[in-house]
Amino acid sequence: MSEIIRKRALKNRLSGIAIHNNTVYLSGQVSWNAQSESIQNQTKDILNVIDEMLAEAGSDKTKLISVTIWLTDMGDFDGFNEVWDSWIPEGCEPARACVGAPLAQLKDHEFCVEVAVIAAI
Amino acid sequence: MSEIIRKRALKNRLSGIAIHNNTVYLSGQVSWNAQSESIQNQTKDILNVIDEMLAEAGSDKTKLISVTIWLTDMGDFDGFNEVWDSWIPEGCEPARACVGAPLAQLKDHEFCVEVAVIAAI
Amino acid sequence: MSEIIRKRALKNRLSGIAIHNNTVYLSGQVSWNAQSESIQNQTKDILNVIDEMLAEAGSDKTKLISVTIWLTDMGDFDGFNEVWDSWIPEGCEPARACVGAPLAQLKDHEFCVEVAVIAAI
Repeated sequence: MSEIIRKRALKNRLSGIAIHNNTVYLSGQVSWNAQSESIQNQTKDILNVIDEMLAEAGSDKTKLISVTIWLTDMGDFDGFNEVWDSWIPEGCEPARACVGAPLAQLKDHEFCVEVAVIAAI
Repeated sequence: MSEIIRKRALKNRLSGIAIHNNTVYLSGQVSWNAQSESIQNQTKDILNVIDEMLAEAGSDKTKLISVTIWLTDMGDFDGFNEVWDSWIPEGCEPARACVGAPLAQLKDHEFCVEVAVIAAI
Repeated sequence: MSEIIRKRALKNRLSGIAIHNNTVYLSGQVSWNAQSESIQNQTKDILNVIDEMLAEAGSDKTKLISVTIWLTDMGDFDGFNEVWDSWIPEGCEPARACVGAPLAQLKDHEFCVEVAVIAAI
């Protein structure tokens, strides 16, 4: 059996970080610090948190393998990419899919983007 | 070349179980036994089937790595989590993303939730 | 650290192909050659491109592990499967999830299906 390392657990629900086979899986991230703000601000906040989580897992954004992006409004596609493209280092582009989806809407929060990441360690 | 083991094949379409590199991938599961019932009942049915499939793959729910959940109505988020949280053992929480999506609606079936799993073996 | 090989990069945004741990991840593929055509034609075009991409990665459709399919209209489920089922070799069926989602709609393009692939090498 191969080992699984988990970090940032929300008890009985999810781990922000799960590591297996030199691969780290991050839970889908939404913006808690820029909630209800623009797609650009929510994306910047999410990517900052992903930087922190990857560091905690022993990885970083140069080691992204595959990323799934959900937008509540596909009209935000260009706004998302504007921030994304300035974050991704040339030569380190991951496989990616970006589709539309309703997201969990918690009280007083409006999330317009969620990002789930698989990266190498 | 690394070996792939497949189980529960629906000929020419999908395998319920695909195993590679000590990792098992399950096809997205919907509830066939509680179709058209509440989100809680559909979720319980799906998680029972996932328990069976993981066992068949040589894994179990303590080895979940990453799970994707699709709800037809994000208003079912709390109902889904109620059943999910009682199923996940403390310390074994996987990375997770839960978003809204229309699901395949077969004749006489109303699916309100689908769950796809990646687990370690 | 494990190596990542990337191919078909769109600078600063995504790689069509990312390889890690004997596993290849393809970016979500939409139909550029059959845009605005039927679900069958868009699916055929996408699966042709996936054949080419897998070959470039040193894999092929007999080594599919897990596939995610997004349809803009779940009413296209049967039309998609018609083409999909004739493409998948018996005994090589991957794990699969197929859900509905709005897709990026670029000027003069109407995409009705997107397919993301994980395969073994």
